[in-house]
Amino acid sequence: MNKEKIREIVEEIVKNSLKKDKMVPIAASNRHIHLSPEHVERLFGRGYELTKLKELSQPNQFAAKETVTLIGPKGRIHNVRVLGPARGSTQVEVSLFDGFTLGVKPPIRNSGDIKGSESITIQGPKGQITIREGLICAARHIHMHKSDGESFGVNDGDLVQVKVDGVRGIIFSNVLIRISSKYKLEMHIDLDEANAAGIKNGQLGEIIATLSPNQVGGE
Amino acid sequence: MNKEKIREIVEEIVKNSLKKDKMVPIAASNRHIHLSPEHVERLFGRGYELTKLKELSQPNQFAAKETVTLIGPKGRIHNVRVLGPARGSTQVEVSLFDGFTLGVKPPIRNSGDIKGSESITIQGPKGQITIREGLICAARHIHMHKSDGESFGVNDGDLVQVKVDGVRGIIFSNVLIRISSKYKLEMHIDLDEANAAGIKNGQLGEIIATLSPNQVGGE
Repeated sequence: MNKEKIREIVEEIVKNSLKKDKMVPIAASNRHIHLSPEHVERLFGRGYELTKLKELSQPNQFAAKETVTLIGPKGRIHNVRVLGPARGSTQVEVSLFDGFTLGVKPPIRNSGDIKGSESITIQGPKGQITIREGLICAARHIHMHKSDGESFGVNDGDLVQVKVDGVRGIIFSNVLIRISSKYKLEMHIDLDEANAAGIKNGQLGEIIATLSPNQVGGE
Repeated sequence: MNKEKIREIVEEIVKNSLKKDKMVPIAASNRHIHLSPEHVERLFGRGYELTKLKELSQPNQFAAKETVTLIGPKGRIHNVRVLGPARGSTQVEVSLFDGFTLGVKPPIRNSGDIKGSESITIQGPKGQITIREGLICAARHIHMHKSDGESFGVNDGDLVQVKVDGVRGIIFSNVLIRISSKYKLEMHIDLDEANAAGIKNGQLGEIIATLSPNQVGGE
Protein backbone atom coordinates (compact mmCIF):
# COMPACT_ATOMS: atom_id res chain seq x y z
CA MET A 1 0.00 0.00 0.00
CA ASN A 2 1.44 3.36 -0.99
CA LYS A 3 1.51 6.58 1.06
CA GLU A 4 -1.24 8.17 -1.00
CA LYS A 5 -3.61 5.26 -0.34
CA ILE A 6 -2.83 5.30 3.40
CA ARG A 7 -3.44 9.04 3.53
CA GLU A 8 -6.82 8.52 1.85
CA ILE A 9 -7.83 5.83 4.33
CA VAL A 10 -6.76 7.89 7.35
CA GLU A 11 -8.62 10.92 6.05
CA GLU A 12 -11.73 8.81 5.59
CA ILE A 13 -11.51 7.46 9.16
CA VAL A 14 -11.02 10.95 10.62
CA LYS A 15 -13.92 12.31 8.58
CA ASN A 16 -16.23 9.52 9.67
CA SER A 17 -15.21 9.94 13.28
CA LEU A 18 -15.85 13.70 13.21
CA LYS A 19 -19.12 13.10 11.46
CA LYS A 20 -20.14 10.56 14.06
CA ASP A 21 -19.45 13.06 16.84
CA LYS A 22 -22.08 15.47 15.57
CA MET A 23 -24.81 12.86 15.34
CA VAL A 24 -27.86 13.20 17.59
CA PRO A 25 -30.58 10.61 18.25
CA ILE A 26 -34.03 11.96 17.36
CA ALA A 27 -37.21 11.29 19.33
CA ALA A 28 -40.71 12.25 18.17
CA SER A 29 -42.93 13.62 20.95
CA ASN A 30 -46.61 12.84 20.72
CA ARG A 31 -49.07 15.33 22.22
CA HIS A 32 -48.79 15.53 26.01
CA ILE A 33 -49.49 17.71 29.01
CA HIS A 34 -47.51 18.94 32.03
CA LEU A 35 -49.75 19.81 34.98
CA SER A 36 -49.30 22.16 37.90
CA PRO A 37 -49.87 20.49 41.31
CA GLU A 38 -53.09 22.50 41.68
CA HIS A 39 -54.43 21.31 38.30
CA VAL A 40 -53.58 17.67 39.13
CA GLU A 41 -55.98 17.98 42.06
CA ARG A 42 -58.70 19.76 40.07
CA LEU A 43 -58.63 17.12 37.31
CA PHE A 44 -58.01 13.98 39.37
CA GLY A 45 -59.27 14.84 42.86
CA ARG A 46 -58.10 16.32 46.18
CA GLY A 47 -54.71 14.98 47.30
CA TYR A 48 -54.17 13.02 44.09
CA GLU A 49 -50.62 12.24 42.97
CA LEU A 50 -49.51 11.16 39.48
CA THR A 51 -48.44 7.53 39.08
CA LYS A 52 -45.35 6.66 37.07
CA LEU A 53 -46.00 4.52 33.99
CA LYS A 54 -42.62 4.77 32.22
CA GLU A 55 -39.33 6.62 32.71
CA LEU A 56 -38.54 9.14 29.97
CA SER A 57 -35.10 9.73 28.48
CA GLN A 58 -34.52 12.97 30.42
CA PRO A 59 -33.70 12.30 34.10
CA ASN A 60 -36.64 12.31 36.61
CA GLN A 61 -39.20 12.82 33.87
CA PHE A 62 -41.87 10.18 33.44
CA ALA A 63 -44.98 9.36 31.45
CA ALA A 64 -47.83 9.05 33.94
CA LYS A 65 -50.58 6.46 33.93
CA GLU A 66 -53.05 9.35 33.81
CA THR A 67 -54.50 10.83 30.62
CA VAL A 68 -56.84 13.76 29.94
CA THR A 69 -59.14 14.91 27.15
CA LEU A 70 -58.47 18.18 25.33
CA ILE A 71 -61.59 20.08 24.28
CA GLY A 72 -61.36 22.81 21.65
CA PRO A 73 -64.02 24.78 19.76
CA LYS A 74 -63.96 22.30 16.84
CA GLY A 75 -63.14 18.94 18.37
CA ARG A 76 -61.76 16.78 21.15
CA ILE A 77 -58.61 14.70 21.52
CA HIS A 78 -58.84 11.84 24.00
CA ASN A 79 -56.11 9.92 25.83
CA VAL A 80 -53.59 12.76 26.00
CA ARG A 81 -50.71 11.55 28.14
CA VAL A 82 -49.81 13.42 31.34
CA LEU A 83 -46.05 13.77 31.94
CA GLY A 84 -44.70 14.01 35.46
CA PRO A 85 -43.66 15.18 37.91
CA ALA A 86 -46.19 17.99 38.43
CA ARG A 87 -44.52 21.36 37.85
CA GLY A 88 -45.06 25.12 38.09
CA SER A 89 -47.44 25.93 35.25
CA THR A 90 -49.70 23.72 33.18
CA GLN A 91 -48.43 23.40 29.62
CA VAL A 92 -50.07 21.44 26.79
CA GLU A 93 -47.94 20.45 23.78
CA VAL A 94 -49.71 19.48 20.56
CA SER A 95 -48.85 19.40 16.86
CA LEU A 96 -50.24 21.92 14.35
CA PHE A 97 -52.32 19.03 12.97
CA ASP A 98 -53.84 18.55 16.45
CA GLY A 99 -54.54 22.29 16.43
CA PHE A 100 -56.74 21.83 13.33
CA THR A 101 -58.58 18.95 15.03
CA LEU A 102 -59.22 21.09 18.12
CA GLY A 103 -59.91 24.29 16.19
CA VAL A 104 -57.13 26.30 17.85
CA LYS A 105 -53.81 27.75 16.70
CA PRO A 106 -50.97 26.78 19.03
CA PRO A 107 -47.98 29.12 18.58
CA ILE A 108 -44.53 27.59 18.00
CA ARG A 109 -42.82 28.10 21.38
CA ASN A 110 -39.95 26.86 23.49
CA SER A 111 -41.04 24.87 26.54
CA GLY A 112 -41.90 27.20 29.42
CA ASP A 113 -42.58 30.20 27.17
CA ILE A 114 -46.36 30.13 27.41
CA LYS A 115 -47.18 33.83 27.86
CA GLY A 116 -49.97 34.79 25.45
CA SER A 117 -50.15 31.27 24.01
CA GLU A 118 -53.43 29.51 23.18
CA SER A 119 -56.30 28.69 25.53
CA ILE A 120 -57.73 25.16 25.87
CA THR A 121 -60.15 23.17 28.00
CA ILE A 122 -58.84 20.07 29.78
CA GLN A 123 -61.07 17.33 31.12
CA GLY A 124 -60.06 14.79 33.75
CA PRO A 125 -62.06 12.10 35.57
CA LYS A 126 -62.86 14.43 38.50
CA GLY A 127 -63.07 17.85 36.92
CA GLN A 128 -62.60 20.18 33.99
CA ILE A 129 -60.48 23.32 33.69
CA THR A 130 -59.96 25.94 31.01
CA ILE A 131 -56.52 27.48 30.88
CA ARG A 132 -56.28 31.00 29.47
CA GLU A 133 -52.82 30.24 28.06
CA GLY A 134 -50.48 27.22 28.01
CA LEU A 135 -51.28 25.42 24.72
CA ILE A 136 -48.21 25.48 22.48
CA CYS A 137 -46.60 23.60 19.62
CA ALA A 138 -43.10 22.85 20.93
CA ALA A 139 -40.23 24.32 18.93
CA ARG A 140 -37.70 21.70 17.83
CA HIS A 141 -34.80 21.44 20.26
CA ILE A 142 -31.84 19.32 21.31
CA HIS A 143 -31.22 18.39 24.94
CA MET A 144 -27.55 17.85 25.64
CA HIS A 145 -25.13 17.49 28.53
CA LYS A 146 -22.42 20.15 29.02
CA SER A 147 -19.84 17.67 27.78
CA ASP A 148 -21.80 17.19 24.52
CA GLY A 149 -21.93 20.96 24.10
CA GLU A 150 -18.16 21.12 24.46
CA SER A 151 -17.43 18.32 22.02
CA PHE A 152 -20.00 19.67 19.51
CA GLY A 153 -18.79 23.25 19.92
CA VAL A 154 -22.24 24.65 20.64
CA ASN A 155 -23.66 26.73 23.48
CA ASP A 156 -26.97 26.82 25.33
CA GLY A 157 -29.40 28.96 23.32
CA ASP A 158 -27.66 28.42 19.97
CA LEU A 159 -29.79 27.62 16.97
CA VAL A 160 -28.38 24.90 14.72
CA GLN A 161 -29.27 23.11 11.50
CA VAL A 162 -29.84 19.36 11.66
CA LYS A 163 -29.76 17.13 8.57
CA VAL A 164 -31.80 13.97 8.34
CA ASP A 165 -31.16 11.56 5.47
CA GLY A 166 -33.63 9.35 3.65
CA VAL A 167 -36.25 9.43 0.90
CA ARG A 168 -37.88 12.29 2.80
CA GLY A 169 -34.54 13.92 3.59
CA ILE A 170 -34.87 17.23 5.41
CA ILE A 171 -32.63 19.84 6.97
CA PHE A 172 -34.29 21.34 10.06
CA SER A 173 -33.30 24.96 10.69
CA ASN A 174 -33.69 26.88 13.97
CA VAL A 175 -33.12 23.87 16.24
CA LEU A 176 -32.60 25.21 19.77
CA ILE A 177 -29.68 23.89 21.81
CA ARG A 178 -30.59 23.31 25.48
CA ILE A 179 -27.61 22.42 27.67
CA SER A 180 -27.76 21.20 31.27
CA SER A 181 -25.73 18.86 33.45
CA LYS A 182 -29.04 16.98 33.89
CA TYR A 183 -29.74 16.43 30.18
CA LYS A 184 -29.09 13.41 28.00
CA LEU A 185 -28.34 13.93 24.31
CA GLU A 186 -31.58 13.82 22.33
CA MET A 187 -33.36 15.91 19.70
CA HIS A 188 -37.10 16.40 20.20
CA ILE A 189 -39.49 17.04 17.33
CA ASP A 190 -43.24 16.61 17.04
CA LEU A 191 -45.17 14.05 14.99
CA ASP A 192 -45.74 16.41 12.03
CA GLU A 193 -41.98 16.92 11.79
CA ALA A 194 -41.21 13.22 12.27
CA ASN A 195 -43.66 12.24 9.52
CA ALA A 196 -42.44 14.99 7.18
CA ALA A 197 -38.92 13.57 7.44
CA GLY A 198 -40.03 9.92 7.58
CA ILE A 199 -38.21 9.53 10.91
CA LYS A 200 -38.30 6.47 13.12
CA ASN A 201 -37.59 6.89 16.84
CA GLY A 202 -33.89 6.67 17.59
CA GLN A 203 -32.86 7.65 14.05
CA LEU A 204 -29.84 9.96 13.96
CA GLY A 205 -29.64 13.54 12.73
CA GLU A 206 -26.42 15.41 11.99
CA ILE A 207 -25.68 18.92 13.24
CA ILE A 208 -24.34 20.58 10.08
CA ALA A 209 -24.28 24.27 10.98
CA THR A 210 -24.64 26.64 13.91
CA LEU A 211 -26.67 29.84 13.64
CA SER A 212 -26.46 32.42 16.39
CA PRO A 213 -29.67 33.03 18.37
CA ASN A 214 -30.11 36.52 16.96
CA GLN A 215 -30.03 35.43 13.30
CA VAL A 216 -33.66 34.36 13.41
CA GLY A 217 -36.69 36.43 14.15
CA GLY A 218 -39.51 35.74 16.58
CA GLU A 219 -42.68 34.01 15.57
CA MET B 1 -23.07 58.66 -6.48
CA ASN B 2 -19.73 57.03 -7.25
CA LYS B 3 -19.05 54.03 -9.52
CA GLU B 4 -18.54 51.69 -6.56
CA LYS B 5 -21.92 52.54 -5.09
CA ILE B 6 -23.65 52.09 -8.48
CA ARG B 7 -21.95 48.72 -8.92
CA GLU B 8 -23.19 47.63 -5.49
CA ILE B 9 -26.76 48.65 -6.28
CA VAL B 10 -26.73 46.91 -9.67
CA GLU B 11 -25.30 43.74 -8.12
CA GLU B 12 -28.03 43.81 -5.50
CA ILE B 13 -30.77 44.16 -8.12
CA VAL B 14 -29.35 41.31 -10.20
CA LYS B 15 -29.03 39.10 -7.12
CA ASN B 16 -32.61 39.78 -6.04
CA SER B 17 -33.88 39.17 -9.55
CA LEU B 18 -32.04 35.82 -9.80
CA LYS B 19 -33.26 34.87 -6.37
CA LYS B 20 -36.82 35.75 -7.31
CA ASP B 21 -36.55 33.54 -10.39
CA LYS B 22 -35.93 30.42 -8.31
CA MET B 23 -38.94 30.95 -6.05
CA VAL B 24 -41.79 28.46 -6.23
CA PRO B 25 -45.27 28.77 -4.72
CA ILE B 26 -46.03 25.88 -2.36
CA ALA B 27 -49.39 24.15 -2.02
CA ALA B 28 -50.25 21.59 0.66
CA SER B 29 -52.32 18.66 -0.62
CA ASN B 30 -54.83 17.18 1.78
CA ARG B 31 -55.66 13.47 1.44
CA HIS B 32 -57.48 12.70 -1.83
CA ILE B 33 -58.29 9.96 -4.30
CA HIS B 34 -58.07 9.52 -8.08
CA LEU B 35 -60.53 6.92 -9.37
CA SER B 36 -60.50 4.72 -12.46
CA PRO B 37 -63.71 5.01 -14.55
CA GLU B 38 -64.64 1.47 -13.44
CA HIS B 39 -64.25 2.32 -9.74
CA VAL B 40 -66.34 5.51 -10.14
CA GLU B 41 -69.22 3.26 -11.24
CA ARG B 42 -68.67 0.70 -8.47
CA LEU B 43 -68.65 3.37 -5.75
CA PHE B 44 -71.25 5.80 -7.14
CA GLY B 45 -73.44 3.66 -9.44
CA ARG B 46 -73.73 2.49 -13.05
CA GLY B 47 -73.12 5.28 -15.59
CA TYR B 48 -72.15 7.80 -12.87
CA GLU B 49 -69.91 10.71 -13.81
CA LEU B 50 -67.96 12.93 -11.39
CA THR B 51 -69.21 16.48 -10.95
CA LYS B 52 -66.78 19.39 -10.87
CA LEU B 53 -66.71 21.33 -7.60
CA LYS B 54 -63.58 23.46 -8.11
CA GLU B 55 -60.82 23.81 -10.72
CA LEU B 56 -57.35 22.88 -9.44
CA SER B 57 -54.15 24.72 -10.28
CA GLN B 58 -52.98 22.11 -12.81
CA PRO B 59 -54.94 22.36 -16.10
CA ASN B 60 -58.05 20.11 -16.50
CA GLN B 61 -57.74 18.78 -12.95
CA PHE B 62 -60.64 19.40 -10.60
CA ALA B 63 -61.86 18.65 -7.10
CA ALA B 64 -65.10 16.70 -7.46
CA LYS B 65 -68.24 17.15 -5.40
CA GLU B 66 -67.95 13.46 -4.49
CA THR B 67 -66.17 12.11 -1.41
CA VAL B 68 -65.45 8.58 -0.16
CA THR B 69 -64.59 6.92 3.14
CA LEU B 70 -61.27 5.11 3.57
CA ILE B 71 -61.43 2.01 5.77
CA GLY B 72 -58.23 0.55 7.23
CA PRO B 73 -57.61 -2.17 9.84
CA LYS B 74 -57.41 0.43 12.67
CA GLY B 75 -59.75 3.23 11.64
CA ARG B 76 -61.72 5.16 9.06
CA ILE B 77 -61.29 8.55 7.43
CA HIS B 78 -64.47 10.15 6.13
CA ASN B 79 -65.00 12.86 3.51
CA VAL B 80 -61.93 12.08 1.41
CA ARG B 81 -62.15 14.27 -1.68
CA VAL B 82 -62.29 12.65 -5.13
CA LEU B 83 -60.21 14.44 -7.77
CA GLY B 84 -61.22 14.32 -11.43
CA PRO B 85 -61.25 13.50 -14.20
CA ALA B 86 -61.41 9.70 -13.78
CA ARG B 87 -58.11 8.14 -14.92
CA GLY B 88 -56.36 4.84 -15.58
CA SER B 89 -55.73 3.39 -12.12
CA THR B 90 -57.21 4.24 -8.76
CA GLN B 91 -54.67 5.99 -6.50
CA VAL B 92 -55.21 7.15 -2.93
CA GLU B 93 -52.86 9.79 -1.50
CA VAL B 94 -52.68 10.19 2.29
CA SER B 95 -50.17 11.52 4.81
CA LEU B 96 -48.14 9.23 7.08
CA PHE B 97 -50.29 10.56 9.95
CA ASP B 98 -53.40 9.35 8.08
CA GLY B 99 -51.61 6.00 7.73
CA PHE B 100 -51.46 5.72 11.56
CA THR B 101 -55.18 6.57 11.79
CA LEU B 102 -56.03 3.88 9.23
CA GLY B 103 -53.49 1.35 10.52
CA VAL B 104 -51.59 1.04 7.23
CA LYS B 105 -48.14 2.07 6.01
CA PRO B 106 -48.32 4.01 2.75
CA PRO B 107 -44.94 4.02 0.96
CA ILE B 108 -43.47 7.35 -0.19
CA ARG B 109 -44.02 7.25 -3.96
CA ASN B 110 -44.24 9.46 -7.01
CA SER B 111 -47.73 9.77 -8.45
CA GLY B 112 -48.47 6.84 -10.78
CA ASP B 113 -45.88 4.56 -9.18
CA ILE B 114 -48.29 2.34 -7.27
CA LYS B 115 -46.85 -1.14 -7.92
CA GLY B 116 -46.61 -3.03 -4.61
CA SER B 117 -47.97 -0.06 -2.64
CA GLU B 118 -50.48 -0.41 0.22
CA SER B 119 -53.96 -1.93 0.09
CA ILE B 120 -57.05 -0.06 1.31
CA THR B 121 -60.83 -0.35 1.36
CA ILE B 122 -62.85 2.49 -0.20
CA GLN B 123 -66.52 3.07 0.53
CA GLY B 124 -68.87 5.12 -1.63
CA PRO B 125 -72.65 5.67 -1.45
CA LYS B 126 -73.39 2.78 -3.83
CA GLY B 127 -70.65 0.28 -3.12
CA GLN B 128 -67.36 -0.65 -1.50
CA ILE B 129 -64.11 -1.83 -3.07
CA THR B 130 -60.77 -3.02 -1.74
CA ILE B 131 -57.75 -2.19 -3.86
CA ARG B 132 -54.80 -4.54 -3.57
CA GLU B 133 -52.40 -1.64 -4.19
CA GLY B 134 -52.75 2.10 -4.85
CA LEU B 135 -52.46 3.73 -1.41
CA ILE B 136 -49.37 5.94 -1.31
CA CYS B 137 -47.92 8.94 0.47
CA ALA B 138 -47.02 11.30 -2.37
CA ALA B 139 -43.36 12.24 -2.66
CA ARG B 140 -42.78 16.00 -2.65
CA HIS B 141 -42.57 17.39 -6.17
CA ILE B 142 -42.63 20.55 -8.23
CA HIS B 143 -44.82 20.90 -11.32
CA MET B 144 -43.35 23.32 -13.83
CA HIS B 145 -43.73 24.42 -17.42
CA LYS B 146 -40.86 23.80 -19.87
CA SER B 147 -40.10 27.53 -19.80
CA ASP B 148 -39.72 27.42 -16.00
CA GLY B 149 -37.34 24.47 -16.34
CA GLU B 150 -35.23 26.47 -18.77
CA SER B 151 -35.07 29.59 -16.62
CA PHE B 152 -34.41 27.54 -13.44
CA GLY B 153 -31.81 25.34 -15.18
CA VAL B 154 -33.46 22.09 -14.12
CA ASN B 155 -34.67 19.05 -16.05
CA ASP B 156 -37.60 16.68 -15.70
CA GLY B 157 -36.68 13.99 -13.15
CA ASP B 158 -34.09 16.11 -11.33
CA LEU B 159 -34.16 16.12 -7.56
CA VAL B 160 -33.67 19.55 -5.99
CA GLN B 161 -33.45 21.10 -2.54
CA VAL B 162 -36.07 23.69 -1.59
CA LYS B 163 -35.59 26.11 1.29
CA VAL B 164 -38.52 27.46 3.26
CA ASP B 165 -37.94 30.31 5.73
CA GLY B 166 -39.68 30.97 9.02
CA VAL B 167 -39.64 29.92 12.68
CA ARG B 168 -40.01 26.34 11.47
CA GLY B 169 -37.53 26.87 8.63
CA ILE B 170 -36.80 23.69 6.68
CA ILE B 171 -34.82 22.64 3.64
CA PHE B 172 -36.65 19.88 1.78
CA SER B 173 -34.30 17.46 -0.02
CA ASN B 174 -35.23 15.07 -2.83
CA VAL B 175 -37.91 17.28 -4.35
CA LEU B 176 -38.78 15.80 -7.76
CA ILE B 177 -38.97 18.12 -10.76
CA ARG B 178 -41.87 17.30 -13.10
CA ILE B 179 -41.84 19.28 -16.34
CA SER B 180 -44.63 19.42 -18.90
CA SER B 181 -46.02 21.98 -21.32
CA LYS B 182 -49.32 21.46 -19.47
CA TYR B 183 -48.01 22.24 -15.97
CA LYS B 184 -48.19 25.43 -13.97
CA LEU B 185 -45.38 26.23 -11.52
CA GLU B 186 -46.26 24.82 -8.08
CA MET B 187 -44.63 22.68 -5.40
CA HIS B 188 -46.83 20.02 -3.82
CA ILE B 189 -46.28 18.70 -0.31
CA ASP B 190 -48.60 16.91 2.10
CA LEU B 191 -50.08 18.22 5.35
CA ASP B 192 -47.40 16.65 7.57
CA GLU B 193 -44.73 18.49 5.57
CA ALA B 194 -46.71 21.75 5.50
CA ASN B 195 -47.20 21.64 9.29
CA ALA B 196 -43.57 20.68 9.92
CA ALA B 197 -42.46 23.80 8.05
CA GLY B 198 -45.33 25.98 9.28
CA ILE B 199 -46.32 26.68 5.67
CA LYS B 200 -49.38 28.59 4.57
CA ASN B 201 -50.80 27.91 1.09
CA GLY B 202 -49.17 30.09 -1.53
CA GLN B 203 -46.01 30.63 0.53
CA LEU B 204 -42.83 30.61 -1.54
CA GLY B 205 -39.93 28.15 -1.39
CA GLU B 206 -36.53 28.72 -2.96
CA ILE B 207 -34.74 26.12 -5.09
CA ILE B 208 -31.22 26.25 -3.65
CA ALA B 209 -29.52 23.19 -5.15
CA THR B 210 -29.96 20.50 -7.77
CA LEU B 211 -29.15 16.86 -7.04
CA SER B 212 -29.02 14.37 -9.87
CA PRO B 213 -31.69 11.65 -9.84
CA ASN B 214 -29.16 8.90 -9.15
CA GLN B 215 -27.75 10.51 -5.99
CA VAL B 216 -30.59 9.19 -3.88
CA GLY B 217 -31.65 5.63 -3.31
CA GLY B 218 -35.09 4.08 -3.57
CA GLU B 219 -37.43 3.78 -0.65
